[in-house]
Amino acid sequence: MEKRSEKIWHEPTLATEHIFKGKIIELQVDTIELPDGRTATREIVRHPGAAAVIALHEGKLIVVEQYRKPLGKTQIEIPAGKLDPNEEPQLAAVRELAEETGYVAHFVQLLQKFYTSPGFADELLYVYFTDQVTAGEQHLDEDEDVIVRLITLEEADRYIASGQISDAKTLLAVYAWKLLQATGKLQ
Amino acid sequence: MEKRSEKIWHEPTLATEHIFKGKIIELQVDTIELPDGRTATREIVRHPGAAAVIALHEGKLIVVEQYRKPLGKTQIEIPAGKLDPNEEPQLAAVRELAEETGYVAHFVQLLQKFYTSPGFADELLYVYFTDQVTAGEQHLDEDEDVIVRLITLEEADRYIASGQISDAKTLLAVYAWKLLQATGKLQ
Repeated sequence: MEKRSEKIWHEPTLATEHIFKGKIIELQVDTIELPDGRTATREIVRHPGAAAVIALHEGKLIVVEQYRKPLGKTQIEIPAGKLDPNEEPQLAAVRELAEETGYVAHFVQLLQKFYTSPGFADELLYVYFTDQVTAGEQHLDEDEDVIVRLITLEEADRYIASGQISDAKTLLAVYAWKLLQATGKLQ
Repeated sequence: MEKRSEKIWHEPTLATEHIFKGKIIELQVDTIELPDGRTATREIVRHPGAAAVIALHEGKLIVVEQYRKPLGKTQIEIPAGKLDPNEEPQLAAVRELAEETGYVAHFVQLLQKFYTSPGFADELLYVYFTDQVTAGEQHLDEDEDVIVRLITLEEADRYIASGQISDAKTLLAVYAWKLLQATGKLQ
């Protein structure tokens, strides 16, 4: 291959095969053109996007413990859920926090938005921060079963060490919390 | 529904439908049993796992700019790639760093491992850290096209602000780097 230029090839689509359309995700396989004219395939999961919230209450982080079928085990995570059609991510974050934990956020700020796995999926996760919540009643979806916990930073580190906290958004939340304590800033 | 106990329901599988088996991912839909006896479905992407590396060289972070077909745009990310069959994650991290950037790591330490999107995928990403690398030659896969950059923390923050850095592992890398600067510790 020629010496690479400073311009990235954009992988034009030659064909798209739609494989699956589910409740949450869709799967397609795109055939793309490579710089040298050959073709390759890209497996792509389409996802509606999701919102999560780092909620601190009385110095503790609000987390939920739930069974994650893809992993075959329970995990402790910050509250999160997929966006409903046309839903503002900020409102989804507040809604998911209230539904899963009962806590009502009076103010949230966008901390980060990130692609969870850009190699095969377009899922974009918006992560909000709040330290202004009041307790209320859980309102779970009918196929959800979660336990709410409030944990200290030391407990979070123990859950990370034991593997009970091991997802991208919750690790990011713990990093933001540590950075807040060390520098006064969330990022 | 009854008052929830402190034990999470484990979603026993009643049936599995295998939808797709590709080069990188597989897709299945499991029918599961809910606590009240009704059923629900879970859309599950199976992924072989991946490894990434936070590599600091002369005070800068080694990153790659590449086109991400699922997103339809280029992104700046830390070097990463999926595990080959039976490959040790640590060796995959060193291999991907060398292939994508030419830099050879003489030592890496596991910083975190995390699930990128536990709601629908089992992808587990191992993130290693190194500050002991030497420069060498890129050896890209034949369908890869990446540009290597070394960036400062201030540049990383600018790329985050502009959206060119916006994936979970690279945000985590920047958080770890900031925490290292603020506290002397990576986590």
